[in-house]
Formats: sequence, structure tokens, C-alpha cells
Amino acid sequence: MKRPIGVLTRPRGFLAAGSAAGIRGTPGVPDVALLVCETPASGAAVFTTNRLCAAPVQVSREHLERSRGRVKAVVVNSGNANACTGLRGTRDAGRMAALTAGLLDVEPARVLVASTGIIGRTLPMGRVESGIRRAARELSAERRGARRFTQAIMTTDRFPKEAETSLVLAGKRVRLAGAAKGAGMIAPHLATMLAFVTTDAAVSPALLRKLLVQAADDSFNRITVDGHMSTNDTCILLASGRSGAAVRSGSRWERKFARALREVTLELALEIVRDGEGAVRLVTLQVEHAGSERDAELAARAVAGSPLVKTALFGADPNWGRIVSAAGASGCAFREDRTSLRVNGLWMYRRGRPLPPSRAVERAMTGSRLTFVLDLGLGRGSSVVYTCDLGYAYVRLNAEYHT
Amino acid sequence: MKRPIGVLTRPRGFLAAGSAAGIRGTPGVPDVALLVCETPASGAAVFTTNRLCAAPVQVSREHLERSRGRVKAVVVNSGNANACTGLRGTRDAGRMAALTAGLLDVEPARVLVASTGIIGRTLPMGRVESGIRRAARELSAERRGARRFTQAIMTTDRFPKEAETSLVLAGKRVRLAGAAKGAGMIAPHLATMLAFVTTDAAVSPALLRKLLVQAADDSFNRITVDGHMSTNDTCILLASGRSGAAVRSGSRWERKFARALREVTLELALEIVRDGEGAVRLVTLQVEHAGSERDAELAARAVAGSPLVKTALFGADPNWGRIVSAAGASGCAFREDRTSLRVNGLWMYRRGRPLPPSRAVERAMTGSRLTFVLDLGLGRGSSVVYTCDLGYAYVRLNAEYHT
Repeated sequence: MKRPIGVLTRPRGFLAAGSAAGIRGTPGVPDVALLVCETPASGAAVFTTNRLCAAPVQVSREHLERSRGRVKAVVVNSGNANACTGLRGTRDAGRMAALTAGLLDVEPARVLVASTGIIGRTLPMGRVESGIRRAARELSAERRGARRFTQAIMTTDRFPKEAETSLVLAGKRVRLAGAAKGAGMIAPHLATMLAFVTTDAAVSPALLRKLLVQAADDSFNRITVDGHMSTNDTCILLASGRSGAAVRSGSRWERKFARALREVTLELALEIVRDGEGAVRLVTLQVEHAGSERDAELAARAVAGSPLVKTALFGADPNWGRIVSAAGASGCAFREDRTSLRVNGLWMYRRGRPLPPSRAVERAMTGSRLTFVLDLGLGRGSSVVYTCDLGYAYVRLNAEYHT
Repeated sequence: MKRPIGVLTRPRGFLAAGSAAGIRGTPGVPDVALLVCETPASGAAVFTTNRLCAAPVQVSREHLERSRGRVKAVVVNSGNANACTGLRGTRDAGRMAALTAGLLDVEPARVLVASTGIIGRTLPMGRVESGIRRAARELSAERRGARRFTQAIMTTDRFPKEAETSLVLAGKRVRLAGAAKGAGMIAPHLATMLAFVTTDAAVSPALLRKLLVQAADDSFNRITVDGHMSTNDTCILLASGRSGAAVRSGSRWERKFARALREVTLELALEIVRDGEGAVRLVTLQVEHAGSERDAELAARAVAGSPLVKTALFGADPNWGRIVSAAGASGCAFREDRTSLRVNGLWMYRRGRPLPPSRAVERAMTGSRLTFVLDLGLGRGSSVVYTCDLGYAYVRLNAEYHT
């Protein structure tokens, strides 16, 4: 996929806008985003599992339930997470939905809300409301509206994150597109991930939810920048049905659509890792032949989350010992004499024996994309996790910002 | 406790030495350590639970079992972990024990072995053996022998780590002393923790083991520098019985002795955290009123292990949001409106509401010792974990060292 910008309205039936409301404190920077479906869409969402969850997450959960997955619009602000803000926060998130609903002449429960930014401060509702009004006036199906949407959800992201794909179902072209913001953690204090995916396929809310959960499991739930789950993480998927192609549960199109959806969510997820704070390397960690699926998962997450491994990656150090020992300590079934490790196809450690250092391995370690395969030699379990290195910039971004 | 140096032979019945064998590559730096009990001692040990464990750990486990906890000596080398070294490594560790046993005229199973240093390289046995011979000739009950022992087990530690205490049991003075090496991870690639504790109390091997497991649970198992468990972690406790005071299971002295033992192991553990790579702050994290003990543990470890929290600590940032949300994501029972956080007794967050920033809190954050109390307001579970900050020096030490 090439790097697009302004894709969210490429699937038919969607309008988007972004407006500068001054919430982020920098005049002219868009910080209120609006995504609207011309006709009522099917909607599904997955949220943070952090038990400290922000007001917009609570409100969106409730609205999705009340509307039974019939969604008209999504309203987003950056610059303020509306988290740890108590009852006032819940009222404010509800007000964002209600105002948007009023402008679009639908019930409030048909509007979902997401926020990202600093936590523990109440929203400047005057600014937020005028931002929403302006965004509603500027709604557009053109590329410009979608581009402004993607810009308005960014916080400390170094680049906008979008992805799109299309497929043909029953002779009709179906499009999928997504926009996300990632792991820039200075202003929000936490790595909030927001992602919005649109499609013009016709999908029931129930199937949409099932497909989104699967796609998120294979993408957003496989990435780790620093293992810290935000209070605001949200991924919303809307299906307008305007392509005229229907995806029904159990139909032969379901798998094809699911694959396209995963393509978009995985691309967004990898963009988020690539933009991990200060990250210079995107690292795929594949665990194979673990004793079980659970073991593979344990090992992959232990390695991907280890600061020792991540600093070695930053330093381009071919330090197989840190990777192998992080797996050994993960709780998975492990036998030294069965364990092997490759990087970009090159052996570093084979059946319990380290290989002599090679120039090829050293060169591989300095790349911006690395794939490690850790083979535990025990069973049929496998898992993959995407991570990044941890360098000075991570410390700078996270230590030098002051609350 | 004041900072002592050369304490391991203060309990009666012990001899110690350290010799420079050239394993660490710096001439004159001691790297072989020997601790001997004049009469056979009771011995107990706890080891890494990493399934990738080093040869000396395997050999010591087996020797302790074969000797039924009767130990004559401990031989240690730094500069090479003898880990990931296959059968050759096991033979070498066995040879270290056998040579020591021969010099002391006891069975090999009465000698325990520990190693710390680089992994994946076989030991230079010629040097190791002459180092052991020299150490055996230099064994001494004086302060100098114990000091050389403590120096010889260090790798990248910035300072030697020792602790001692004494108590009166049945009118007799009983001494306990300990030496440890910690989380300096450059040369060994991994944070190997080695600790050796001596006492002149008379304790059976079975009770000694029970007391050591308890003491380690309350000290070494409560510290985290970067969550990475080494292949070589070892803590050995030897009791010579030479004070003439016996500690029997269930006796009224058992609890008193257990307290003294924990005092020594906790002091050693905190010294290790204080010397965490690049650390400038020693942080106590106390979780109170969790729904259960397990919940308290989950929350404490999640907060203490979070790189986001640790970089904020480095930056002296009063970022309560990172701490509270790490707990919220830990899987423990959690209610925002019940949760409170204090630092050094000052409120930062109270029943779900952030307190306005204060100069007193800002000042507290810049200290070298901080205590956070996270009150979950739900039940009776409590837990404590000791951690440190994560700063530039951690990245430098771990990224710029090359394998």
C-alpha cells in the first residue's frame, strides 16, 4: 500500500471534516474531527480494557448499545483526553454527542465520541462546541475533509496514519479506508490509540462487531510500544452499505472482506509502532513451534515488552541472549537445546548454541525493519507481535515533558 | 544500617577471599571469590526461575540436593556467566566445585557455584582454576578477605553492596551478614543478581531453606529494575552454628531470626535497586486496600514495571495519571472513584480526583528516595514493590554496549 492522505471518505457515503478549535493551544491546528455517514451506518467499536477509562469511552459504549449499532456520526477531539474528569467529564462527552446529533438531526445515541490528549483536565466546552459547529458546516466528501479529519486526531504523531484497500464482491467494488493516531505520548501522558475505519460494504452491526474484534486481535492487539494501555484507546468501524455489496455472516464474501479489513487495521497498527516515541526500528517478532498458542503468546509478549531487548534493538546490538532469556523467563515451556533464533532469515542461535558473530547479522540489526523468528522447537503454537526499539528520544519525550 | 565493607566473615566460622584471575579482562581486578565455612554449615539457596538457566545454577541445585543442605564452600566467578554454554558449561561448573572441594578436602557436592558476566562464552578454565587456587591460599577470617570477596563478585556495579545485623538469642549474640552484586548489565548482558548471606546461628537445612524463601519473597522478589530475570540469579545462605545459639522451627527465636534475616536481605535488595543502571531514584511502591492480595501484587508490579512511569520518575514529573492508569490496566479490581495516590505522604489524586499541582509535591518528586502509596479503596489486599527510574544512562548502558 502506498502512503495516502485523506482516504476516509473514499468508501461511498461518508463525509468528514476537521476544525481548529484551540483545544491543543496552537492556533490553526485542527483538533476537532467529525465523520458522518450520509445514511445511517452499521457501527462497531473496540475500546481500551483499562479499568480507568475515559468519559468518551463510557459514553460511546452506552450509545452503541442503545442504538444497537446504528451510527450516524463520530465526533473526536484532540488536546484533551477527558479522562479522570468525573461526572463533569461524562456530561461533557454526552454534550459533544448531543450537539453533533442536533446539528445532524438524529438521536444522540447515534453519535460516538472519542478524545485524546492531556488527562485530568476538564474540556474547554466553549471551544469544543464552536469547533463541532464549524466542522459540521465544513463536512465534505472530498479528500480535503478526510485529510483534515486525520490531522485533527493527531497529537504528537510525527506523521499522519492512513490506509486503504478495495476488493470486488459480487461484481461490485467495495472500499475500505482507515485513519489512526498513535503512540505520541507527550501531551496526552499516555499512548492513546484512536482508529477509525470506513467501508461502503453493507454489513449488519453484529457481523461488523465480530469482524472488528477479529481484525483488532490480529493488528492493534499485537503491537506494543511500551506496554502501557491508555484510558482512551478506541477503534470504530462504520459500514455505509453504499457500494451495494452485502457481506453476510457465513457467506463466501465474509472471509474476503475480513482479509481486506485486517489489511487496513494491520497497516494502521504498524504505522503506529513505526511512529512509537523515538523509535527507529519496526520489529516483527514471530514465535514458532511453541508448546501451545498460549505459550507462543507469552514468549512473544515477554520479548517484545522487555526494555533490555528494546534498548539492544536501538543500539543495533545482535544480542540474542536478551531475546532468548526473556522468552525463558516468560513462563512458556522452554528447552534450551531446542531453541533457535533468526533475524531476517539469518541464524543467531541454533538449538541452544550461539552462532559466531557475522557481518551479515550486524548489518541486519541496523535496518529500519527487522523480523525475528524465535523457534522454541516444542509444539505447534505460534504468535506474532510488533514492537519497536527504545532509545534516548523515548526517555526525552517521557521524562522531559512536565505535568 | 551504616554502609559496611568486608562483613561476610563477621559471623563466626567463615573464611573468605577474592583473587584476580584475569577473567574480567582487567588485570588486578578480583574476579574469583571463595567463601568457606570452617565446619560444615547448613546451606540453602534460591535460584532464578528463568527456564534458560546457567550451568552453575544447575550444578548448585544438584549439589544442594545431594549433600542434603550440608555446605562447605561457595565458589564464584565474575566476568563470565557460563550460561548458554551447553554440556561444556556444565562440566566447567562441576570442575570449579570439584577443584574447590579438592583443595578443602571435602566431597564436590559440598561446594556450590555461582557465575556472573557475559553469556554464551565458555569459561577460560585455566585462569579460573589458578584463581581458585590463589583464593584458597588467601582465605581469611579478617575483614580483608570478606572485602575482596565482595569486590570479586561485582561486574558493572557502581558500589559494593553489603549489609549486616546482629541479635541476641538465648543470651548469645548471633550475627548475620550479606554481600550482593546487582543490576549492572553491560558486561553480563543481563541483570544478574548474586547474594550471599552468612550467619553463625545453628539452623537445620530444612528450616534455613524455609526462612530464606520467606526472606527472598519479601526482598529480592520485590525489586524490579527492568523486569528482566537473569539466567544466573542466585542467593545462598549459610549457617555455621558457631554462635552456639540454635534456631529451631516453631521456637520463639524463629520469628526474631527471620526478622533479622529479612533486614539483611531487604537492605541488599534495596542496594541493588539503588544501583539500577543509571538510576537516580529508589522508589517504594505500596499498594493498599486492593480487592485481594493478588490484586495488590498485580497493581504494584504493573506500576513498577511501566517504562512510562519510570521515565516520568527520572524526569521528576508528578505524573499521577501514568501510575493510576498502569494500575487500572493491570487486571486488578479497580474503581476510579475509590482510588487515591500519595507521594511521601502528600496527596496527588484522591478518590478519583486529581489534586491541583503543589510545590511540595514537585519538591518530593526530585528526591532520591520516594514512597508512593496507591490506595485502591476496595478491600484488604496490600503489596509493596521497590523500583527505580529509567533515564538516559539506562539506554546508554544497554544500547551502546555491543555484543
